[in-house]
Amino acid sequence: MNTNNDLTRPLSSTADPIGRVEAAYERIAAVDRPEIWITLRTREDALAIAREVQTRLDHDGADSLPLAGTVVAVKDNIDVAGLPTTCAAPATSYVPELSATAVARLEEAGAIAIGKTNLDQFATGLVGTRSPYGAVRNAFDPDLISGGSSSGSAVATALGIVDAALGTDTAGSGRVPAAFNRLVGIKPTLGLVPARGMVPAAPSYDTITVFARTLTTARTIVDTITGVDPLDATSRAWDPTAPVAASPSPRLAVAQAHNLSPLSPAWQDSYDRTLDSLRQAGVELIETDITPLLDAAKLLYEGAIVAERTYAVGRHLDTDPERADPSVTAIIRGGGDKTAVNLVADQQSLRRAALTAQTVLADVDALLLPTAPGHPRIDEVQADPIAVNSWVGTYTNFVNLLDLAAIAVPGTEADGAPFGVTLIGPAFSDAALADLAGRMLLDEPSVDAAWNPPTIDIAVFGAHMTGQPLNGQLTDLGAVCRGTITTAPTYRLHALPTTPPKPGLVRVGSGGAAITGERWSIPAAHVGNFLTGLAAPMTVGVVELDTGDTALGFLCEPLATMDAPDITSAGSWATYLATR
Amino acid sequence: MNTNNDLTRPLSSTADPIGRVEAAYERIAAVDRPEIWITLRTREDALAIAREVQTRLDHDGADSLPLAGTVVAVKDNIDVAGLPTTCAAPATSYVPELSATAVARLEEAGAIAIGKTNLDQFATGLVGTRSPYGAVRNAFDPDLISGGSSSGSAVATALGIVDAALGTDTAGSGRVPAAFNRLVGIKPTLGLVPARGMVPAAPSYDTITVFARTLTTARTIVDTITGVDPLDATSRAWDPTAPVAASPSPRLAVAQAHNLSPLSPAWQDSYDRTLDSLRQAGVELIETDITPLLDAAKLLYEGAIVAERTYAVGRHLDTDPERADPSVTAIIRGGGDKTAVNLVADQQSLRRAALTAQTVLADVDALLLPTAPGHPRIDEVQADPIAVNSWVGTYTNFVNLLDLAAIAVPGTEADGAPFGVTLIGPAFSDAALADLAGRMLLDEPSVDAAWNPPTIDIAVFGAHMTGQPLNGQLTDLGAVCRGTITTAPTYRLHALPTTPPKPGLVRVGSGGAAITGERWSIPAAHVGNFLTGLAAPMTVGVVELDTGDTALGFLCEPLATMDAPDITSAGSWATYLATR
Repeated sequence: MNTNNDLTRPLSSTADPIGRVEAAYERIAAVDRPEIWITLRTREDALAIAREVQTRLDHDGADSLPLAGTVVAVKDNIDVAGLPTTCAAPATSYVPELSATAVARLEEAGAIAIGKTNLDQFATGLVGTRSPYGAVRNAFDPDLISGGSSSGSAVATALGIVDAALGTDTAGSGRVPAAFNRLVGIKPTLGLVPARGMVPAAPSYDTITVFARTLTTARTIVDTITGVDPLDATSRAWDPTAPVAASPSPRLAVAQAHNLSPLSPAWQDSYDRTLDSLRQAGVELIETDITPLLDAAKLLYEGAIVAERTYAVGRHLDTDPERADPSVTAIIRGGGDKTAVNLVADQQSLRRAALTAQTVLADVDALLLPTAPGHPRIDEVQADPIAVNSWVGTYTNFVNLLDLAAIAVPGTEADGAPFGVTLIGPAFSDAALADLAGRMLLDEPSVDAAWNPPTIDIAVFGAHMTGQPLNGQLTDLGAVCRGTITTAPTYRLHALPTTPPKPGLVRVGSGGAAITGERWSIPAAHVGNFLTGLAAPMTVGVVELDTGDTALGFLCEPLATMDAPDITSAGSWATYLATR
Repeated sequence: MNTNNDLTRPLSSTADPIGRVEAAYERIAAVDRPEIWITLRTREDALAIAREVQTRLDHDGADSLPLAGTVVAVKDNIDVAGLPTTCAAPATSYVPELSATAVARLEEAGAIAIGKTNLDQFATGLVGTRSPYGAVRNAFDPDLISGGSSSGSAVATALGIVDAALGTDTAGSGRVPAAFNRLVGIKPTLGLVPARGMVPAAPSYDTITVFARTLTTARTIVDTITGVDPLDATSRAWDPTAPVAASPSPRLAVAQAHNLSPLSPAWQDSYDRTLDSLRQAGVELIETDITPLLDAAKLLYEGAIVAERTYAVGRHLDTDPERADPSVTAIIRGGGDKTAVNLVADQQSLRRAALTAQTVLADVDALLLPTAPGHPRIDEVQADPIAVNSWVGTYTNFVNLLDLAAIAVPGTEADGAPFGVTLIGPAFSDAALADLAGRMLLDEPSVDAAWNPPTIDIAVFGAHMTGQPLNGQLTDLGAVCRGTITTAPTYRLHALPTTPPKPGLVRVGSGGAAITGERWSIPAAHVGNFLTGLAAPMTVGVVELDTGDTALGFLCEPLATMDAPDITSAGSWATYLATR
């Protein structure tokens, strides 16, 4: 039996490295898609790595190898030590001694990279056809394109060969293939995942991305590879004010009808159905004119920004004319004609466009767009490679130019063919976007999910709890409830005569009881803002939990409890309110 | 008597707009430096504005016009409504309808802009000689250069005509003239002061700056003009983790001897004396190789970055050849030859250099350098205008390229001629730099000084107070003590049996007393980090002060005070410790 058949199997059940690798190679044989790979490890080499992981697992235990046995593929513009990096331009190939920071972090956690995947040459393209290693066929309909440039990584994931795969994204290369292959594609805020060991396509606007079949898997993988690399000048730490969650009642900006004229009828239908489902789920949709974003997108290929690509790989264009993709060559050469003054002008235009994007994204949790305007066939791309590619990028090109975060997820399909939407938010809104995607578009709520900005936990016992009148003080700051907690049996609870009514928790020397509350994770840098809402007689102190741990949590001044009714026997504020 | 003679007079004593303007025009006549001004309001026009300010003052009160009667000058590349903006290139002159955001904020606060000051043409130069309106002579020795490009603004301030002046700074234009004219020159982190209404010189690397004769005045002015302008794409909010103060025991990086080879003997002597004074004041100086910073500086004029200037003003070069400064024209034309690929390459070099700068600045409070390598005479500049200018910028050019903050202040003069040093720190370290400058180089300690990042105040009563064992938990976060506070007479204090010993403050219904503690301002985003150091039985709650205000402050759980000695009669922890 092929253990890969359960494509939504959680990673935590994967601590069987040898079995997982064997299953991957069975699946590779079964799907017969050789164009996925530029370099595939032999089954024997992969099994040798799996045995090493098993040895580490036996020695160090599962906790130190959270990804033990997770099988991954790596786009062939990201270094894996000992395997060639080709960028689908074989004449430029080299064999790196070190894995990219992201790959090294996966390997350290026990993941097994079985091979390097095909891509649009030099990661320049959104179609998956621009490679001397062959056009990558769509996972579900081989006449359709896979999307690109992270074509092989997406199809390897969609076909269940690997649990997840690394892609890269400048213009949409980590999102378009997700949409075309029913995947989650996380395009992190630029710099969150170190770029060291990735061959740049446009170094100011590139990031490594993650494909997986579930959001939970994608988050686990991206969580593992996120974090500052002190040797990487493009690496950025989380903004400590970054939200951990979106609003409980989300508001999404959606495109106005005229912004959607590029959509194919099928994708228009699917987008409409996706919006209908969201409306039915209570999401407020605000039609917003995104013309300024679409205009900014044009700067990526039509202006001087393309010199980023010429800088990155232009020196390779003449090394192997036979295997050079003509579209890729034409695009990259285009940057050679531009002047530095042109580039300054376009960069200044982008700064202004970024300001406009802030306006579009103000007062909403995210912008929701179709990931692409439609899904071309391979022969359509071959007939008109530049124009079709450009059309495919309509709704993705602007995102990195404007320093935005994005997560592509499958949408509601109108015609049984893949369809995807993308949630887009400001830099560092990644966790809020993932929360929205999980709650509103998938069925994967984010509590306890991985990949979060720094938070500080505070235990609440009264008016700040879910459904209580001051809960908005937490949710407005992007905090998230991590579930209920119970104190050690050393506290008493009083009903205080405050407005709104609040309970007062007090530690006692004897006669105490366990009191139930909630644990909230607050963005680390917002704890001060939260505290400025503190009103006497409430205090924040250190609360002992029944687990033996402690947490910051609400207590109260002793003077306030003197004449306040003791409600300890209720065990919680909610029970007291219900029985009052 | 000329009320301007007291050049260190604080602004708060200036609420005499008419008298102040009259004094300014007396001083203008007395100093006979017509080259300071490109456009000077007539005395009558300035007095008319002063009368309007007086009317507002009479009507709204001094609190709403904190700068009432402060007389300022504005560099002539920053718009003042109704006065021409020339950039010292008269053919490009226009008369703006709106004042620049910074100027409008000063005017709103009651300041009176009496005129527009001379500058190196298009703000391109560090010498003050590159203007068809004449070379600006140094305030103290007319044979020496004023420094530039903010030449007129610096000299108008140094000669006591105005209280403060706005300059701009790309390569050092807000710092070099400060050094040459014994001024404080604040070069804020890029974007903190909105640039709207400033003619860009190199739009990615420009900022408005402030000159004043005292740090306190400079901080007051820059505080008034700081803050996001939602219409300005280059505008940035304070980083909420930004420190409010430097360490109590500062460590400064200083240049290694070989980095100082460009210094003139006199400036080497003055730099050495300045360092000696700092050492005697207990500042730890760490000799650091700044070669990577000096190398990055060369990219400003020798690489493709100069295309920023060509983009900004290149179109004006042929409009008035007779009055075009040949050095300025040559520099700006230089950007026209560069390709977009050159510019991407240089921008990527700058990213790597910024990473190196982080290393240089790690583990120190700031980098202290001579502001310039020496002070040329006007005839020396005229003999070799490009080379001398380039030399002058040795220690300033890299700062904006690497997104650093800087404050230039007078140093210890070896030969009775002006000498200046600059404190340089990471983006958003501005308040910490100002604190260092005030405490270590001037005699203006920063408590209660203006221009700070967002903070949240917490009242401390025991182990966190100055000199107590946990005080480092505050100072390590860049917090600053705002002085002592006293509670309302409703508290009791107990000596808790904790390690280290702490007092426990508890509000009581009767029999309370006033307890003295300290108020600390903590960078807003670090309050959460501070709280994670909280140990039971300490809590943070809302404390009533004797002023009737409240503040967040330390309290403690009631259980802890039951058997703890009552030390209320001591009135404070310090007194208790002293008398124990």
